[in-house]
Amino acid sequence: MYDVAIIGGGAAGMSAAIYAARGGMNTVVFEKLSCGGQMTRTNEIDNYPGFADTPSGAELAEAIKNHAGKFDIEFKNEGVKEIRGADCSVKTIVTRRGEYQTRTVIFATGASPKKLGADGEEKFAGAGVSYCATCDGAFFKNKDAVVVGGGNTAFEDALYLANFCENVYILNRSKRFRAVKTLVEKVKVNPKITIYTDIAVDYFDGANALERVYVKNTATNERGFINASLAVIAIGITPDSALAKSCGVETCERGFIKTDMYLAANLVGVFAAGDVRVSPLRQVITAAADGAVAATSAVNYLNGVK
Amino acid sequence: MYDVAIIGGGAAGMSAAIYAARGGMNTVVFEKLSCGGQMTRTNEIDNYPGFADTPSGAELAEAIKNHAGKFDIEFKNEGVKEIRGADCSVKTIVTRRGEYQTRTVIFATGASPKKLGADGEEKFAGAGVSYCATCDGAFFKNKDAVVVGGGNTAFEDALYLANFCENVYILNRSKRFRAVKTLVEKVKVNPKITIYTDIAVDYFDGANALERVYVKNTATNERGFINASLAVIAIGITPDSALAKSCGVETCERGFIKTDMYLAANLVGVFAAGDVRVSPLRQVITAAADGAVAATSAVNYLNGVK
Repeated sequence: MYDVAIIGGGAAGMSAAIYAARGGMNTVVFEKLSCGGQMTRTNEIDNYPGFADTPSGAELAEAIKNHAGKFDIEFKNEGVKEIRGADCSVKTIVTRRGEYQTRTVIFATGASPKKLGADGEEKFAGAGVSYCATCDGAFFKNKDAVVVGGGNTAFEDALYLANFCENVYILNRSKRFRAVKTLVEKVKVNPKITIYTDIAVDYFDGANALERVYVKNTATNERGFINASLAVIAIGITPDSALAKSCGVETCERGFIKTDMYLAANLVGVFAAGDVRVSPLRQVITAAADGAVAATSAVNYLNGVK
Repeated sequence: MYDVAIIGGGAAGMSAAIYAARGGMNTVVFEKLSCGGQMTRTNEIDNYPGFADTPSGAELAEAIKNHAGKFDIEFKNEGVKEIRGADCSVKTIVTRRGEYQTRTVIFATGASPKKLGADGEEKFAGAGVSYCATCDGAFFKNKDAVVVGGGNTAFEDALYLANFCENVYILNRSKRFRAVKTLVEKVKVNPKITIYTDIAVDYFDGANALERVYVKNTATNERGFINASLAVIAIGITPDSALAKSCGVETCERGFIKTDMYLAANLVGVFAAGDVRVSPLRQVITAAADGAVAATSAVNYLNGVK
């Protein structure tokens, strides 16, 4: 019988494991891939306070994993298929290899940015193609940038980048924006930002890093390109919350798990941490903090506190 | 004119500065002492994910400070006396040395645990005397521990420690507990925890580290001692929020700054991060995450987003 079962071994999951194990709890982490989560697919992490030398995502993941390795934590390289009795005081976690009982569950399953599927997108990922303006923008001071998308995040990202980039181009597939009107107005009066409508990305091009974004007009099929060193793809983020939902965990309309301030979900003994929850910001540092909060709340719950 | 003025140079303040500067904002940090905040008075930090080798608080502070040093951040070694027009779009920060204008303020002024004032308390701080069970408890597995206090935190800490310590003694000055009844009941049925009422700490004793807590009965003046390697002082925590309050920033009844999910306070362009705010957990990692959230919210506010 485990006290704390953590689903997902990214920053949130590993941090939760550290806090649960330090709290004297019998702790297990289920991760179907290798630990590290989304950050392992990130080239440089410049904003995890304390790591000044811009580690790669893999290096930072390794550091956190080593840290977790100091404590008595069981790691199971197994994907979770099902959780039975998620609303009961003892929950059963089902994987391909077996069944495990636990008194609490922390969902730290993360989220993935949506991909465009354009040629060169994968090649230049981390070399100009980015899915997070807050993470990568600062590497492109005084450079030209493209933001792909027409929702709130795309417009917010454009405004964010315009604070230090030279020119910012928003590329939107249609004439309509999903972004709220006030954001669109704010972008329209910003002299650094140009909005292109009916424009889709054809492919990304460059030598070793991104140099040009080839585009086509979705109405006329006319082609062209924009010189840019950075392309932020802001067409959405998909939480990995299918398992949570199937257990009766409440999510927002976009699929992110709803929690209270203590990161408790709607079911007793169920918590969520990191990118998978409704959250004001999705960064490695916020995921790590979430893990600490969710695990401490789980420990308190197990102690009968609250 | 600054875009973002951060009051306090602890983990929350330095992280906020990193995020604000990376967001292209003209950023200043006011810190009257040296940067690092509360963690600099901590011997070993075992739970800042990624730092596996248990750095001292001073070492971790130095690492975060070095990180902040990479960015274009102004550090002012000045205490803030007053903020004029905190509810205006341009706010004036007043120090002994001058006046500075800023468009946003982030309060990252921290909090301090209340001290007992007992002999040996300072001598054994970090060598058995602790103000944070979550931070230091795990260093004392299978040892005996004392918790001083009678409020919710003292009782929660006792339950937390009972998960891995051998014996836990709660010392309460009076016969009454401020802790809620459910917590007291939970503690009473825990075989590892003993509650002593009418007991105050006389002094802390030991060779190089804490070994014994000398106590006296507040009713009878009888004296005695308890063998313990750990003494958690849980008699309260005082937020450093006087400046914020004097500006009209709303706090809870205990003096912590109230924020929304984006860490915005009740005044436009005013945010709070770290131990000074109403928060589910106060750790270096949560303070650092708070700084990231508050700064990103400040950048969004300055961009006209929200």
